[in-house]
Amino acid sequence: MVDSVRLDELNWLEFKSKVAAGAPVFLPLGSTEQHGPHLPLCVDVTLPTGVCERVAREVGGLVAPTIPYGCKSMPRSGGGEHFPGTLSLDAHTFSLVVRDVIRNLGRQGVRRIVVVNGHYENCWPSVEGLDLALRELWRDGIHDMQAMRLEYWDFAQRPTLDKLFPDGFPGIDLEHASLLETSLMLLLRPELVEMDKVPDDGPATFPPYDKFPLPEDFGLPHSGVLAVATGSTAEKGQLLMDDYVPLIAEAIRKEFRLDQ
Amino acid sequence: MVDSVRLDELNWLEFKSKVAAGAPVFLPLGSTEQHGPHLPLCVDVTLPTGVCERVAREVGGLVAPTIPYGCKSMPRSGGGEHFPGTLSLDAHTFSLVVRDVIRNLGRQGVRRIVVVNGHYENCWPSVEGLDLALRELWRDGIHDMQAMRLEYWDFAQRPTLDKLFPDGFPGIDLEHASLLETSLMLLLRPELVEMDKVPDDGPATFPPYDKFPLPEDFGLPHSGVLAVATGSTAEKGQLLMDDYVPLIAEAIRKEFRLDQ
Amino acid sequence: MVDSVRLDELNWLEFKSKVAAGAPVFLPLGSTEQHGPHLPLCVDVTLPTGVCERVAREVGGLVAPTIPYGCKSMPRSGGGEHFPGTLSLDAHTFSLVVRDVIRNLGRQGVRRIVVVNGHYENCWPSVEGLDLALRELWRDGIHDMQAMRLEYWDFAQRPTLDKLFPDGFPGIDLEHASLLETSLMLLLRPELVEMDKVPDDGPATFPPYDKFPLPEDFGLPHSGVLAVATGSTAEKGQLLMDDYVPLIAEAIRKEFRLDQ
Amino acid sequence: MVDSVRLDELNWLEFKSKVAAGAPVFLPLGSTEQHGPHLPLCVDVTLPTGVCERVAREVGGLVAPTIPYGCKSMPRSGGGEHFPGTLSLDAHTFSLVVRDVIRNLGRQGVRRIVVVNGHYENCWPSVEGLDLALRELWRDGIHDMQAMRLEYWDFAQRPTLDKLFPDGFPGIDLEHASLLETSLMLLLRPELVEMDKVPDDGPATFPPYDKFPLPEDFGLPHSGVLAVATGSTAEKGQLLMDDYVPLIAEAIRKEFRLDQ
Amino acid sequence: MVDSVRLDELNWLEFKSKVAAGAPVFLPLGSTEQHGPHLPLCVDVTLPTGVCERVAREVGGLVAPTIPYGCKSMPRSGGGEHFPGTLSLDAHTFSLVVRDVIRNLGRQGVRRIVVVNGHYENCWPSVEGLDLALRELWRDGIHDMQAMRLEYWDFAQRPTLDKLFPDGFPGIDLEHASLLETSLMLLLRPELVEMDKVPDDGPATFPPYDKFPLPEDFGLPHSGVLAVATGSTAEKGQLLMDDYVPLIAEAIRKEFRLDQ
Amino acid sequence: MVDSVRLDELNWLEFKSKVAAGAPVFLPLGSTEQHGPHLPLCVDVTLPTGVCERVAREVGGLVAPTIPYGCKSMPRSGGGEHFPGTLSLDAHTFSLVVRDVIRNLGRQGVRRIVVVNGHYENCWPSVEGLDLALRELWRDGIHDMQAMRLEYWDFAQRPTLDKLFPDGFPGIDLEHASLLETSLMLLLRPELVEMDKVPDDGPATFPPYDKFPLPEDFGLPHSGVLAVATGSTAEKGQLLMDDYVPLIAEAIRKEFRLDQ
Repeated sequence: MVDSVRLDELNWLEFKSKVAAGAPVFLPLGSTEQHGPHLPLCVDVTLPTGVCERVAREVGGLVAPTIPYGCKSMPRSGGGEHFPGTLSLDAHTFSLVVRDVIRNLGRQGVRRIVVVNGHYENCWPSVEGLDLALRELWRDGIHDMQAMRLEYWDFAQRPTLDKLFPDGFPGIDLEHASLLETSLMLLLRPELVEMDKVPDDGPATFPPYDKFPLPEDFGLPHSGVLAVATGSTAEKGQLLMDDYVPLIAEAIRKEFRLDQ
Repeated sequence: MVDSVRLDELNWLEFKSKVAAGAPVFLPLGSTEQHGPHLPLCVDVTLPTGVCERVAREVGGLVAPTIPYGCKSMPRSGGGEHFPGTLSLDAHTFSLVVRDVIRNLGRQGVRRIVVVNGHYENCWPSVEGLDLALRELWRDGIHDMQAMRLEYWDFAQRPTLDKLFPDGFPGIDLEHASLLETSLMLLLRPELVEMDKVPDDGPATFPPYDKFPLPEDFGLPHSGVLAVATGSTAEKGQLLMDDYVPLIAEAIRKEFRLDQ
Repeated sequence: MVDSVRLDELNWLEFKSKVAAGAPVFLPLGSTEQHGPHLPLCVDVTLPTGVCERVAREVGGLVAPTIPYGCKSMPRSGGGEHFPGTLSLDAHTFSLVVRDVIRNLGRQGVRRIVVVNGHYENCWPSVEGLDLALRELWRDGIHDMQAMRLEYWDFAQRPTLDKLFPDGFPGIDLEHASLLETSLMLLLRPELVEMDKVPDDGPATFPPYDKFPLPEDFGLPHSGVLAVATGSTAEKGQLLMDDYVPLIAEAIRKEFRLDQ
Repeated sequence: MVDSVRLDELNWLEFKSKVAAGAPVFLPLGSTEQHGPHLPLCVDVTLPTGVCERVAREVGGLVAPTIPYGCKSMPRSGGGEHFPGTLSLDAHTFSLVVRDVIRNLGRQGVRRIVVVNGHYENCWPSVEGLDLALRELWRDGIHDMQAMRLEYWDFAQRPTLDKLFPDGFPGIDLEHASLLETSLMLLLRPELVEMDKVPDDGPATFPPYDKFPLPEDFGLPHSGVLAVATGSTAEKGQLLMDDYVPLIAEAIRKEFRLDQ
Repeated sequence: MVDSVRLDELNWLEFKSKVAAGAPVFLPLGSTEQHGPHLPLCVDVTLPTGVCERVAREVGGLVAPTIPYGCKSMPRSGGGEHFPGTLSLDAHTFSLVVRDVIRNLGRQGVRRIVVVNGHYENCWPSVEGLDLALRELWRDGIHDMQAMRLEYWDFAQRPTLDKLFPDGFPGIDLEHASLLETSLMLLLRPELVEMDKVPDDGPATFPPYDKFPLPEDFGLPHSGVLAVATGSTAEKGQLLMDDYVPLIAEAIRKEFRLDQ
Repeated sequence: MVDSVRLDELNWLEFKSKVAAGAPVFLPLGSTEQHGPHLPLCVDVTLPTGVCERVAREVGGLVAPTIPYGCKSMPRSGGGEHFPGTLSLDAHTFSLVVRDVIRNLGRQGVRRIVVVNGHYENCWPSVEGLDLALRELWRDGIHDMQAMRLEYWDFAQRPTLDKLFPDGFPGIDLEHASLLETSLMLLLRPELVEMDKVPDDGPATFPPYDKFPLPEDFGLPHSGVLAVATGSTAEKGQLLMDDYVPLIAEAIRKEFRLDQ
């Protein structure tokens, strides 16, 4: 028997048995998006998938296939759709994907779902997709579905951020392709990171608004790295992971009453 | 520099450079679907992805992230949505995903796209998504897009099938989770195949119609394997791959005039 | 009182009474599509309608108005959308039409529905529309709907095909505007068939993929006839009809337990 | 060669040739809807189709297949969706059908389209569908499309109505299944009219609002005939047709400058 | 405590308490649309809102925020979308807005809803939106929703119209920006009416059909006023309001059994 | 002539003239949402409308009617949809409304649009709506549209926040119905504020995730006020407005080059 937390590596009988036992199912939400010259386009797929696999092992869960295309990238949070390699879905499309996967998990008996987002712009359309799914499941007669939805980075603790950013944490908004993501990639897929290509044209200096079309002087670094990636290490990635995994696991145990 | 045919393992500058050089981009279409007790749910992701990676190496192309959820499974071709672990999208959702990814590839300068389908029920909604994308690209002023769309299994040659099925090829319709797919999985992900669990409750004996709800006596094997998987080997998988890769590569070269 | 199997030739009281008596309702799915120089654009409307009317008489059913516009035509199965006179719907539109008609039949008390498709490209969007309707009806509290869905041509028996094609049946894929459809039209609407215009530029020699835009050398006969129509006769049409009608009627009686 | 004004009775070469010659194409919009105990459900299909065929002969036009399912029936204009046999589409679905057919006529070179509505509730969704089609055609680079849209009954002249209603015309609102429609059916499909079943429970006495759910005392005749059908004759139908056909033909010639 | 019939001027506790007491909720439907040179673009917002506020006071109801953008304007009823300042929604969008607001009112316990339309082209998409909402609410388990839908102008009584139009009422069709609307605006927002700018290029002389694109000689007054606004006074507006308010209130009391 | 910055208080000739002169058009995005026991449901309509009117006067712009229903409220930012009086649209509906209004402004010649959001959950669907509109306008041949999109609260300056929050600004996330919004309402609509009802059950203590269904112990104050409203004054509202208006005006002048 295959022993895997990846739902898609099980056969249908194993899936059925795990679901019958109450296993929570994780749905990671990624994107294919520029992450500077030193990181590959798959960062937002790799990171939430990696977090989910670790948490799933903690709580006896399964990880559904990561949605690899995210909702459209904006200049102030991800550089924007004009960057080569950024391949996104319209918000409506993305929400329908989330809706369909969650609805069908529900129809197959899953009652504990954790949506783990790894791409900033997915936050709201994933709320929408989840809401649409729960609405449909209710109408299908499924009234006991439990779901959580989170951005994994929100589980970094203040002391950890203080340690990683001795000069002060610049805020999650600018962390695109920066120290946090680069360190986590060094931990999870080091062969895809090229530290010698880390740029120094940041940090971004955005005005407090969006502009269409994007002006030349909008404050967006040409590299696509919104803050600073220098100093990233796998150790720092591990520090973050050491926050994410136990804290997310704890939240899941609490909300889904897994220990009762 | 990362050397990969996987689009998402490149950084955005590498992607930009490959696209500028005219690289064809492959979009594999998969599904998360029951494939009997001996195969994992990821068969329809693994196979077209594996084919695409091999062909991409032949023709200097890139492979975009595989769409891991397919269009709804039907009893006569995939067992049906009621099987545990089969997680599908509505046809409209699936078409919008294909539309968005192809449209955005086009907007980023890609002019040669190959959609490679690995899940039977994706055929028509992938045609629809491609048609919608091309229609939109035309309106966006992009009039020189070239696209191909194919089911990889259609490239198996008659002599190969005759060799694999000495008693006669039962037809592609019933090949779900059967000898072809099992052999290819033994080639690509042998650690996920459990040959000792190959069932013998097939082949399916379907009537020539769909029925809702599904009757007990519809002829669908309980295992979800529509024909027979006994006798599958990695060697047979290699025989198939030896048809698929050069023939698909040849078709691409011809249609995209890659050698001119 | 009007005695008709056509639902739309009844008045509402007659409809109500037939439905109350458990009459199955047939929904034929057609298209307006090129069928070569010798056949009119209405072939895919005429044939499933004709089959339905005959089967309905056998089983005491009613035939709802045929949907006259089908899902988009593809070169390898119907010549393609670029042919003059081919007028199709997007897949989403087509599915919504099927959904709405079936849902409203269900709301009016119909519990036995047979969707009979006469246009290849309608297969999958009709599955989708039917699935969407059943899903909605379930939510409306209608849990006992029974539905069948079929392509009428799948009911031709091997011996019949052997008789019609003494040199071997080339396969249903290429039968567009060819011997089967022409013979059936000679049976049902002979005044619309011009046998002197039957072309001889076939059969099609398609490669195993779709290409956009369509290449000049794709193997598509200029006439739009994918195989061969020579030798078509009304008698051959009758032979086919003698398979379709009793076998479809038998399947319906079995699945809907009409004789119990 | 088949000589027909019905587009779907032509083959694709004849269609192509007519379109190249500038033939206007008529799209009749019908419905499947209760029309009292004396009329069949197909009234709203039969009447606009009959009008279109006659006008098409006058102006050298073609009649596309009638859309047989209309937009949802309301109690105050058609009795309502609860009547057995009334089978409608959602407004969005109906608009998409109109959009797709018109868009594809435009893509095939048709530049003069006349949408002829025969079901009151289709008015607005047909405007919507036409608007969406023209918007898309513009984006496709087709800037010279000409289209008309009309309800055929608006071409009855005052003196004709005075002759048909010597006691005063009650207004088109209540003419559902009443004298005008019954007389036209006696002209076009007399075998489907049962004058001995004409009810006398009308006319309707509606309040000036809609109510959901429909109250018992809403003033809707149980027969579904909103006004009075007594006295209908084929001669009266001919009087109406003698208004419709020349006046609609004249309007088309003027707007499409057919004589220039 | 704020005493207001405007739902949005209450706080949530007041809203909750009113709803618990069975207060009917009014949803006015407006538009932003040209109304000639003497009236502002907000006429169709101001009038139904004003009617609703007065009726709500009579029956103890609440007025939800008016939807300020209506469904697309047509030349024969509102001048058309080409007029500067006419800003409309697609029919599908408009219906979804109506659907969502009514569905969410229902979910919050409201069981008596009155949709009051002030823009002609909103009639049908508001029926659609209401129907979609009731369908969804039924599926959500809410089976006791009561709803009315009306155009306020249909409550003008014949004697009132005879008084306002001593030479005969030209019909509601042409009343766009004409005597009725101008008089009501003089009553409700006189500071926005410029009687010295009332044009005299009407009335419109439309043919009985729509034409795309709009011809020069279609009979549409350049001012956008379809009939005649001369002679409008606040007193006449009050006469109308004296019909609308008590009659709508009476209809609501009857249908919602408010006095029982 | 009416002198107003409100687009809907102009007549169509005035609108036309302003647009021809290059006036920027503001589109405020609101919501109907609970704002605690001391504030009305219209806070998110009143505030962005008030800001827009003031900025429009500064830059010679026009304010389009505020969209009064927003995208669905979430517990962590607005209390959630379960609060009585919170009436929202689905994200798709909201985006379509934004799309339609902006597209139609563009078609009427407006080339400078400023979307000003006043409800947190509108951020992303308003990006989506704007993106869809710009995409359509491009296809309509309008290539010179300039648009900005902003949340007005992002223009508060640090020193102002420090003055308003001497103990430290708790962050914009929890400012729902709290000091900023209450102070601005005291400035703009003091008659709708009841300071004696300001609750003291906050601030919210949310975990870093969403949970469906909402748990009892989620940290959401029963009042719906997420932080603290005590100490709000109109003067503080004026301080904020003194940041918003000149800074937004300055950004608009810069981006739209209004002074060149």
